[in-house]
Amino acid sequence: MTSYLKNSWYCAGWGRDLGSKPIGIRICDEPIVLFRTSDDSVAALDGRCPHRFAPLSIGKVKGDVIECGYHGLQFDRTGACTLNPHGRGIIPPRAHTRAYPVAEKHGAIWVWMGDPAAADPEKILDLFFVDAEGWAGTTGYLKIEANYQLIIDNLLDLTHGTYLHPDTVGGAPEDTLGDNLHYEFRTEGSTIYSNYTAFNAAPTPLMGLFYTRSRGDLLASMRWEPASSLLLDIGIAPIGQPINSGLRVPSAHLIAPETANSSHYFFAISRNWELENLEKTRVMGEIAMKAFADEDEPVIARCFEMMGRRELFDLAPAILETDRAAVQARRMLTKLIKQEQGHVDGAAEAEAAE
Amino acid sequence: MTSYLKNSWYCAGWGRDLGSKPIGIRICDEPIVLFRTSDDSVAALDGRCPHRFAPLSIGKVKGDVIECGYHGLQFDRTGACTLNPHGRGIIPPRAHTRAYPVAEKHGAIWVWMGDPAAADPEKILDLFFVDAEGWAGTTGYLKIEANYQLIIDNLLDLTHGTYLHPDTVGGAPEDTLGDNLHYEFRTEGSTIYSNYTAFNAAPTPLMGLFYTRSRGDLLASMRWEPASSLLLDIGIAPIGQPINSGLRVPSAHLIAPETANSSHYFFAISRNWELENLEKTRVMGEIAMKAFADEDEPVIARCFEMMGRRELFDLAPAILETDRAAVQARRMLTKLIKQEQGHVDGAAEAEAAE
Amino acid sequence: MTSYLKNSWYCAGWGRDLGSKPIGIRICDEPIVLFRTSDDSVAALDGRCPHRFAPLSIGKVKGDVIECGYHGLQFDRTGACTLNPHGRGIIPPRAHTRAYPVAEKHGAIWVWMGDPAAADPEKILDLFFVDAEGWAGTTGYLKIEANYQLIIDNLLDLTHGTYLHPDTVGGAPEDTLGDNLHYEFRTEGSTIYSNYTAFNAAPTPLMGLFYTRSRGDLLASMRWEPASSLLLDIGIAPIGQPINSGLRVPSAHLIAPETANSSHYFFAISRNWELENLEKTRVMGEIAMKAFADEDEPVIARCFEMMGRRELFDLAPAILETDRAAVQARRMLTKLIKQEQGHVDGAAEAEAAE
Repeated sequence: MTSYLKNSWYCAGWGRDLGSKPIGIRICDEPIVLFRTSDDSVAALDGRCPHRFAPLSIGKVKGDVIECGYHGLQFDRTGACTLNPHGRGIIPPRAHTRAYPVAEKHGAIWVWMGDPAAADPEKILDLFFVDAEGWAGTTGYLKIEANYQLIIDNLLDLTHGTYLHPDTVGGAPEDTLGDNLHYEFRTEGSTIYSNYTAFNAAPTPLMGLFYTRSRGDLLASMRWEPASSLLLDIGIAPIGQPINSGLRVPSAHLIAPETANSSHYFFAISRNWELENLEKTRVMGEIAMKAFADEDEPVIARCFEMMGRRELFDLAPAILETDRAAVQARRMLTKLIKQEQGHVDGAAEAEAAE
Repeated sequence: MTSYLKNSWYCAGWGRDLGSKPIGIRICDEPIVLFRTSDDSVAALDGRCPHRFAPLSIGKVKGDVIECGYHGLQFDRTGACTLNPHGRGIIPPRAHTRAYPVAEKHGAIWVWMGDPAAADPEKILDLFFVDAEGWAGTTGYLKIEANYQLIIDNLLDLTHGTYLHPDTVGGAPEDTLGDNLHYEFRTEGSTIYSNYTAFNAAPTPLMGLFYTRSRGDLLASMRWEPASSLLLDIGIAPIGQPINSGLRVPSAHLIAPETANSSHYFFAISRNWELENLEKTRVMGEIAMKAFADEDEPVIARCFEMMGRRELFDLAPAILETDRAAVQARRMLTKLIKQEQGHVDGAAEAEAAE
Repeated sequence: MTSYLKNSWYCAGWGRDLGSKPIGIRICDEPIVLFRTSDDSVAALDGRCPHRFAPLSIGKVKGDVIECGYHGLQFDRTGACTLNPHGRGIIPPRAHTRAYPVAEKHGAIWVWMGDPAAADPEKILDLFFVDAEGWAGTTGYLKIEANYQLIIDNLLDLTHGTYLHPDTVGGAPEDTLGDNLHYEFRTEGSTIYSNYTAFNAAPTPLMGLFYTRSRGDLLASMRWEPASSLLLDIGIAPIGQPINSGLRVPSAHLIAPETANSSHYFFAISRNWELENLEKTRVMGEIAMKAFADEDEPVIARCFEMMGRRELFDLAPAILETDRAAVQARRMLTKLIKQEQGHVDGAAEAEAAE
């Protein structure tokens, strides 16, 4: 039984994909329906009508309410039933559904899965490069048929790029193996960083779209925020120059567990270069999608299958030096989930003692 | 674990579909093979050969017996093995299979899943409109990926028609919502009725095939017989005239649980109007199939999925006034299954006490 | 929970199919990777990298090692990790994977699933007819969606041929039913034979490719070696002549359980006739594949489904005279598995007592 960190913002979609039709999505094994009310803001409710459990995502949005497509009950953004269209129109107390805190920020829709009182939109990850001036890029989505923690493992150990992504987002073996790559793994509060530096290295194929010299100094800085959002900032600059002064390609890797065995992967990727070149934006998106969907996804899914869908540490894996950040993130997540559940249990006990 | 009402006739197919080849079907999670003997009557046996459990439905009918397609054992309609074609031809006592009481009536094949001594073909639902003079119509079949009780729920609460079937078998919102629709829910013995009357209403698209006035008085009378057979009689007549004097469109909705998670849905629909118009018969069948297969099935299946395949009442649903008949049918079915199992348990106890 | 006979050679593939790319296969529910080292010999390792459990079959063979396709760890044929390409290259003790005894013989690759000390390649079944002079034939593979014991049942009772294979490898009913077919079931050590003789019989369609007389004396001799390898030798000769003096069509049926619910079926079929006729070799292969994949597989898979994937004897099947060899093989296999597990348990107890 997978448990999830509930008091966390999870990316539930890109705002541009949510128009006048509601969208259903399962996060932490809970069905959710997203829709836009008349002021264009996003609402998030339990995805099931409390009457016959029809998916509200097949319903219709009517102003500020969503209408169930099965028998026509209407619910507002607080989850209250505002209309029973049949007979005397009596609304029984149970005709009420759960509302989730939800926010739209920098183009992403975020849902808070835990205690609404603890939801603070200020803590949502800053995806400035998605919509700020000076950046140009693209967003995307794929489904990964594996537990979400395997995707965090993948992202916090970028040494796989050399083997899995030679034609897309990986570095050349002669620049990225052995002593040629410098690692730094760092924990700050509950944030974990894994940084990689290679001096005098060839740009990755994706970086090479914009950076046209054959070599440069390269820094890839990956940052994980619990439960499962990651930001990667890759920079390359002519040898000896400050890396931040050159091409920068920041990307977001926003994972939301769908079930214990499948995950949503929302990504965004931008650059500070040739902002008007739409063709290069298109190609950059294609390369990213190829790397994530054609290269990462099948391997992660097959690892999970090979693990018999069990917990990683139950299988006594060989841990390499380069796994440090991923191992720390797994420990941090376990600790935070325990704290959260302890807190809940503590509260329940206190309540029971009254 | 779903339990079923065993002492009940379940529709297992339309007679016209059973020719010289046997047909396999699973009902109440029991595999059954149907075949026609030389007098053209239908036989129903356990669908597995007792030797190696090959499906008898891949075998051949030879006169009054069915021959297993794997090793050639033959069985008659009582389930007795009549031939072992190998060696000395010894037929071991276990080479015997279960025979089910079976009847063909008004074009439908019915199988009795319980105690054969209790099977009374007189109690089979009267589908007069399928083959009697004065009626013309069509029959069909679809599979529904949900527990059968969700289909009964669907049929005993026709208020969903306004939302789910606006282009097929549902009424117009202005005629069927709020005070405009009159309900009557009634229980007689173990039969449950749910009746709907709308005065001065537009005909449904399906009724409009035959009833060409723009308005009329409409009565839809749904009748449920345990375990899972339903008859719907819809009539429309010019305003103020007796409804039975006009167009009548009776239909049968014969549900047979396949497993706990899937159901057979056999339907028949007829009318007392333009009996010779084969084109309209075809269109009527198409509209019905669209309503059941394209509109009802996906919603019922997704409700079941959203329920995590659990029991409805375990999920504390909001019950509306218009759910009364469906709730009564669920209670009646639970009571009848308990009685049946109590009877069996009682009999077993009595036997044990001897 | 299916248990397997571990101390047994299982066919894991045909050698010609293993080139420079590794192949992954699951046997007895254990994932295995096969690859060829620089001397062209076959190596067999646990199919999962011990680091992140990526399937090694997606990796690359480099000389005598296989390189994981995810992070680049390399393993030799003993399962030792020989290279960690990252950072200081530290190889942790757990970076070691299991090696399986493996042998290539007469074109087949065999893997020993049990105690390596007990693996004796001399005991591998002699498939002389696959590559010896005087024989010509073909090999093939299919997957069967059933427990492997159902395939042994199928092969040890050839009376199904008359019903399931009339157009491929089965005999004519008038020659193979009742008294016309003579059976002999024999056990020698742990080898079980089931032999069938028909005098003055028509050749099967497959035999008829080469044997052009309309009748002959026919002998089919099936031999089972635990756990799940079978050899069938079919001969036909003009009436009254020694059967071995005529056409012989030996075949191998090498079953390897993939999981409790699915099996690998490797087959080879040869003949001592018209050795140079490649067209007839092709047709012979097609007929065999049709018999196994189109006729046997669906029936065996559906039997298994009809059995609810349960153990045969738990379902109290009707046992016919002609089941004797299959029943004996099931009992033998149960006995051998018990012995093997008793031995293991005994060893564990002895160890615990020290």
